[in-house]
Amino acid sequence: MITLHGMSASGNCYKLQLLLAQLERPYRWVEVDTLSGATRTPEFLAKNANGKVPLLELEDGRCLAESNAILCYLAEGSAYYPAEPWLRAQTLQWLFFEQYSHEPYVAVARFIAKFLPPDHPRRAELPRLQERGHQALAVMEGELATRDFMLASGYSIADIALYAYTHDAPAGGVGLDAYPRLRAWLARVEGQPRFIAQQA
Amino acid sequence: MITLHGMSASGNCYKLQLLLAQLERPYRWVEVDTLSGATRTPEFLAKNANGKVPLLELEDGRCLAESNAILCYLAEGSAYYPAEPWLRAQTLQWLFFEQYSHEPYVAVARFIAKFLPPDHPRRAELPRLQERGHQALAVMEGELATRDFMLASGYSIADIALYAYTHDAPAGGVGLDAYPRLRAWLARVEGQPRFIAQQA
Repeated sequence: MITLHGMSASGNCYKLQLLLAQLERPYRWVEVDTLSGATRTPEFLAKNANGKVPLLELEDGRCLAESNAILCYLAEGSAYYPAEPWLRAQTLQWLFFEQYSHEPYVAVARFIAKFLPPDHPRRAELPRLQERGHQALAVMEGELATRDFMLASGYSIADIALYAYTHDAPAGGVGLDAYPRLRAWLARVEGQPRFIAQQA
Repeated sequence: MITLHGMSASGNCYKLQLLLAQLERPYRWVEVDTLSGATRTPEFLAKNANGKVPLLELEDGRCLAESNAILCYLAEGSAYYPAEPWLRAQTLQWLFFEQYSHEPYVAVARFIAKFLPPDHPRRAELPRLQERGHQALAVMEGELATRDFMLASGYSIADIALYAYTHDAPAGGVGLDAYPRLRAWLARVEGQPRFIAQQA
């Protein structure tokens, strides 16, 4: 059975929990507390030199890092990762958009606001993070003018990746009031078969 | 013929110039000056709502954004993007590593140091960017202890993506002296058939 090393509070880890639930694929979950340095131990760094979760570990010990690379690997051959070349290209486009233009703002604002003390100096970063987060949400809102999901072909790992932090964006002060299409999309994602909510 | 919208000084755009040269695939190049707002015009935003280059435009007008998604799309079917599932997963792992843990530090430090005036307030970001840039290079240095390229199978788009900013990291104050394997890897990349250096 595959093993997933992750932290329940992390949206990047939740992506994989959601996909695996929808694939109905069993897995072993190992909770890793990144905040207390559990990704910086020699044992963990031997599995992922970049010291991050989620981390997928196969039965034979091979390990794969990067949440969106793991999404692609696990979804291969399923309808969640279309094989048609242009749809596949667009899937990757949205996965890279998520990691470069969305997660570093929406997820980091959420982390600072939700997990750091009220007087933490990193709170000074929030206005800029929120501004850039809104830019990412506006791109998604525009995209959803012409389609129900991020790909024209329907629900995919592009939606899973972007749902992971978008649904909790308000926790970082990035409100969703200005994005009616995005809110309707969140509800459509939550209406998918075998959808599971984030547990922490 | 395909069209590539890009800025010659951008490593993300150079990735695609390098791959297309190695694929010996002709293309039309449209220089876009992002520093003067050319990615914020209505015409450009209609092609990429996220307002970034590089942008691939097909003969029929369809557009694809995100440098590493474009690398995958263009390299599909070639030896630069192995089809074997685990190698493919590792390719994507390194491409996401590049965009999340490497480019935001190594490339942004280079941008600030190389293109902003000496008294620009963003220079205050340099120490943190350089520290995180070194963390990324250390991960690569460790990886190269056991192999010549980022994948065990040989030269691939993972090398192209990581070469793009690593070779110019010293311009951002991220020196390569501490990374002998990385410097040997840079030379191996530069020794590949049809290698071209960045033009700007």
